[in-house]
Amino acid sequence: MDMKLICTQTELNTHLSLVNRAIPSRPSHPVLANVLLVVDADTQQVSLTGFDLSLGVQTSFAAQVEQGGTLTLPARLLSDIVSRLPSGEIVLGEEEGETLVTLTCASGRYQVRGMGATEYPELPTIEDGDVVYLPVEALTEGLRGSLFSTSSDETKPVLTGVHITVEADSLEFAATDGHRLAVVQTILESIDPQDKKQDKKSANSSIQFDVTVPAKALRELERMLQINTTGEAIAVRFDRGQLIFEWANQRLTSRLLEGQYPNYRQLIPRQFSRQLTVDRRFFTSALERIAVLADQKNSIVKMNLDSVKQEAVLSVDAQDVGSGRETIVAQISGEDLDIAFNVKYLLEGLKAFNTTEVQMQFNTATSPSILTPLGGLKMTYLVMPVQVRGN
Amino acid sequence: MDMKLICTQTELNTHLSLVNRAIPSRPSHPVLANVLLVVDADTQQVSLTGFDLSLGVQTSFAAQVEQGGTLTLPARLLSDIVSRLPSGEIVLGEEEGETLVTLTCASGRYQVRGMGATEYPELPTIEDGDVVYLPVEALTEGLRGSLFSTSSDETKPVLTGVHITVEADSLEFAATDGHRLAVVQTILESIDPQDKKQDKKSANSSIQFDVTVPAKALRELERMLQINTTGEAIAVRFDRGQLIFEWANQRLTSRLLEGQYPNYRQLIPRQFSRQLTVDRRFFTSALERIAVLADQKNSIVKMNLDSVKQEAVLSVDAQDVGSGRETIVAQISGEDLDIAFNVKYLLEGLKAFNTTEVQMQFNTATSPSILTPLGGLKMTYLVMPVQVRGN
Repeated sequence: MDMKLICTQTELNTHLSLVNRAIPSRPSHPVLANVLLVVDADTQQVSLTGFDLSLGVQTSFAAQVEQGGTLTLPARLLSDIVSRLPSGEIVLGEEEGETLVTLTCASGRYQVRGMGATEYPELPTIEDGDVVYLPVEALTEGLRGSLFSTSSDETKPVLTGVHITVEADSLEFAATDGHRLAVVQTILESIDPQDKKQDKKSANSSIQFDVTVPAKALRELERMLQINTTGEAIAVRFDRGQLIFEWANQRLTSRLLEGQYPNYRQLIPRQFSRQLTVDRRFFTSALERIAVLADQKNSIVKMNLDSVKQEAVLSVDAQDVGSGRETIVAQISGEDLDIAFNVKYLLEGLKAFNTTEVQMQFNTATSPSILTPLGGLKMTYLVMPVQVRGN
Repeated sequence: MDMKLICTQTELNTHLSLVNRAIPSRPSHPVLANVLLVVDADTQQVSLTGFDLSLGVQTSFAAQVEQGGTLTLPARLLSDIVSRLPSGEIVLGEEEGETLVTLTCASGRYQVRGMGATEYPELPTIEDGDVVYLPVEALTEGLRGSLFSTSSDETKPVLTGVHITVEADSLEFAATDGHRLAVVQTILESIDPQDKKQDKKSANSSIQFDVTVPAKALRELERMLQINTTGEAIAVRFDRGQLIFEWANQRLTSRLLEGQYPNYRQLIPRQFSRQLTVDRRFFTSALERIAVLADQKNSIVKMNLDSVKQEAVLSVDAQDVGSGRETIVAQISGEDLDIAFNVKYLLEGLKAFNTTEVQMQFNTATSPSILTPLGGLKMTYLVMPVQVRGN
C-alpha cells in the first residue's frame, strides 16, 4: 500500500498556506512549484516543505497516518482545492505505483498529479553551528522597526537585508537604503530553552555574531510569528551562508546576504543642538496631508522650527498645482531652523513607532536628523535632510 | 469678493468621492480632470459635477455660502487633501482675480490651483423628453441580475451595455456577451412622484421605450443607489442619445449605446425536457472546487444527471494536472443527460441569485440551458453548453 493519511481540512489548509509563501512563482526547476509531503507512520506526523532555494519553510502537524511515504504535489493547486473543501475529514491516499494523490472528502474526490521527492532539494540543516534563543517579542519588535528601511535595489544586495547583531546580552537590528537608517536595540535576556524560564547562566551569553538576512525571508518570519502564539523562544542556528529559525513545529531557513554591511553606528550623531517633541499621530496626520501635494512634485516637505512660539510649521510648494502649510504645537529647544525632508521617509518611520510622543533631533539643515519614539522600543531612525534652493 | 463658503469636512468629502468616479483617468481635455463647483448664495447650495463626456455625475449639498461663484478644481488632488483633513469646518475661498482656492481648516491652509469654468462642458439636460419613475428596489435588482453578463469586447459596442425595456407595467433588463444571457423582469408599479404613493393612474403607464446603457454608467448608478437610502423613486429622462437618472440631490447622465440590440427573447426555449432543482450554495461550492482544476485547462465542467439516483455528478479532467468529481443531491426529472459548460458562466449566474434553491432546465447537450432562482427575483439566465469530444 502506498501513502495514506486522514486529517482535518482546517489543519491541512492552515499548514499549506504557511509553506505556500515559500513556493516561487517562477520556479527555476519544476519540482520547486511543489510542496514536499513527508508522512511518518511512526510519529503520526505530516511535514510540509516549501523552498525557493533561498527561503525555506517547513511545518508539521499530527494526522492519522495509515501508511507513511514521501512525495511532492503542486502547491498552489493543492492549496486552492483544499481551501475550498468543506470542513471535516479529508483522506489523502497515493495511488499505487503512481505519483497521483486522491483527496476524498464528504462531497467528492479529487486527484492531483505530483512528482517524486527524489529531485526535491534538501532544506539546509545546521548540525554543528551555534544556537541562540531569541524571545518572540524582541524578534517581532526588531523586525517591525527595521524591515521598512531596507532597500529594494538589487544592485546593492547587502542593503536589501536586515543586519542582525547578537551580543552577550543585546540584540540589534539595522536596515538602511542609503537615505535613511533604522536601528532597533533590544535587551537579550537569556533564556533556558528547556524550561523557558529566564536564566542568566544560559548558553546564549557566550555567543556573538552578526549576519545580514534578506528582507523577504524576514517578512515571512514576521508573518509566521504573528500566527504562532505559543510564546516559545525562537532557536536561531547559523553557520556560513545560512540561518535557521526554529520553534514548535515550524522552521524557516534563509540564505544570508554576503558582503560587508555599512558601519552604520558611526553615522548616528551623538549630540544635537535642536530638539522637537510632538504628538506622533498629530504629526503623522499633518504630514499625510502635506504629502498629497508633495507627491505631485518632489516629495519634499519643509519644516520650520520656532522655539519662541513653540510650534513647527510644515509646508509644501508644488508650484503649478498648489501649496499647503500645517502648524503643529510642539516642545522645541535650540535655535530656529529651516530644514527639508523627503516626506515619505518621515512617514514610514513614524508609522513604525507605536508611542504617543515622538522626539526629533537636529543639528543643521544639512546634517542627519534622528527620530525616536518616546517611551517605547529603543529605536533610532536617522533621516538625511534634503537641500532645497533658496526660498 | 470672490467665491467663499463654509462647510463640514464630512459633507465635502462624501460628495467629492461621488463625483470623483466620473472623472476620467486620462482626460481628453485638461479641464475634465477637474470637478466643477457651482456655489449658489441664494439657495445656499454647492453643486459638484464630474463628467467624462460619456458618464456624468452631479450632486449638491447645503453649505454656508458667503459669496457665490463657479470654478473647477483638480478632482483627485482636492479629494485626496479633503479626505485627510480632520473632521470639522472647512472654509473654501477663492483668491481674488485668480483661479486659486484656499482651504482653511483648524490645523492648516492649503491652496489649490483650478481652472475657469468656461471651458467645462455642460452636462446633458433633457427638457422635453419623457420621464418615468422607477422604484429604487426594482432598479437595483435589475442591475444586479444583468450587469455581470455584459460583454467587455469593445468591437461589439452594443453588447457592452444593458438593454432596458420599459413598458406599461413592466421593466426588463437584459445583458448578453454572446455566450450567456441574463434577463430580469420586474413589475413596474406606477408611482406618483409627488407624494411617493403607489398610484395606478400615474403618467408612467403611457410610456414605452427601450435603450442600451453602457455598463460603466450603470455600475456607477448601482453604487450610488447603495449609498442613497432615501428610498425616493428614481426619475429617468431620456431622448435620443442620452439618459438621465435623477433623485434627491443627485443626477447621473449617460450617453446611450447605438445599434440594434439582439432579439434575445427568441433565444429562450419555452419548453424543457429535463429539470434539476438544487441547493444554490451547495451547487456553488462544488462548482468552485471543480473550477480550480477546470481553470488549469479549458474551464469546462461536465455534468451528468441521474434521475434514478436523484443526483448530479460534476466532473473535471485536466489531464496532466489532475481530475475531480463532486456528487450533489438534487431533484431531477427527465431522462439522464451528459452536458458540459464553461464553469465561470455557471458560477457568475449563481452568484447573482439570492435564493436558497435554484432550478436548471435542459433539453439536449447542444441546446441552451437556463438557470432560475426559485422564489426570488424573476430572472432567467441562459447558458450555452460546450461540446466536448467523446469520453
